[in-house]
Amino acid sequence: MGDVHFFNLNDLSQGIARDLTEELRTRIFRGESVIISVVVKPNKSGAIHNHFERQPGVMLEGDGGRIQDGVEHLVKAGKLWRTPGNASHSFVGGPGGAVILDIFSAPLEEYKKADSGVGN
Amino acid sequence: MGDVHFFNLNDLSQGIARDLTEELRTRIFRGESVIISVVVKPNKSGAIHNHFERQPGVMLEGDGGRIQDGVEHLVKAGKLWRTPGNASHSFVGGPGGAVILDIFSAPLEEYKKADSGVGN
Repeated sequence: MGDVHFFNLNDLSQGIARDLTEELRTRIFRGESVIISVVVKPNKSGAIHNHFERQPGVMLEGDGGRIQDGVEHLVKAGKLWRTPGNASHSFVGGPGGAVILDIFSAPLEEYKKADSGVGN
Repeated sequence: MGDVHFFNLNDLSQGIARDLTEELRTRIFRGESVIISVVVKPNKSGAIHNHFERQPGVMLEGDGGRIQDGVEHLVKAGKLWRTPGNASHSFVGGPGGAVILDIFSAPLEEYKKADSGVGN
C-alpha cells in the first residue's frame, strides 16, 4: 500500500500534467508541500511573475538562467535556490533546455490563518 | 545581493555540514522549508525513526532502498516519494551509494499553533 507515495519523475505518465506555456511543461506531485517538476525548452522562458508562496527550487538537468528580483543567475544541475515570497521570478532555458524541481510552500503566517485557502 | 539565495549542492563547502552517522553525511540548506542533501555510503543505512514533520524526498544520484512503514522500496535517480508525518523511515545505500534531497515541512496543524517551536 505504501507505493501510493512513490513516484518516478522520469515517467511522463506520472503526476498531474500541465502545460504552463508551450515552452514550460510541468507535472505536479501534490503533498503537504507542492512539488513540481518543470521542463523548460531550449532558449525559451516563462513570464516574470510573483506570488506570496515561497518557492525553493533545484536544478536537476541542463542549464539556464534563473531570473529573480531583476537579476539573472546562471544555473546548472546541482544548483539550489530560495525564492522568497513575493520575489519576482522566471526561468530561461539554456541551449540544451532544463529540468527543474520547484517546491512550493506557503509562509508560516499564511498557515496560521484559518481558511486561508493556501493549504497544500 | 540576490546571490544569498543561490547554492551549489555539489560544492561541499556550502550548507551546514552535519554527520548524522558515519554512514550518513548531510548538508542543510535552511529556508521556510528545510532542505537537506544526504549522502549515504554504499550498503550502509541509518536508523529507522519517525517524526511528525512530513518529509518528501527526491533521489538525485545512485540507488538504494527507502524503508517506509516497514516496506523497502527500491529507488534510483529520478524517484520522488512522500513520507507522511509519523511514518517510520530509513534509507539503505545501494552498491554505489546514494545522494538524496530531503525536504522537511511541518504539517499545517503544527503551523497553526503559536510558539510550537517547529518553524523552519
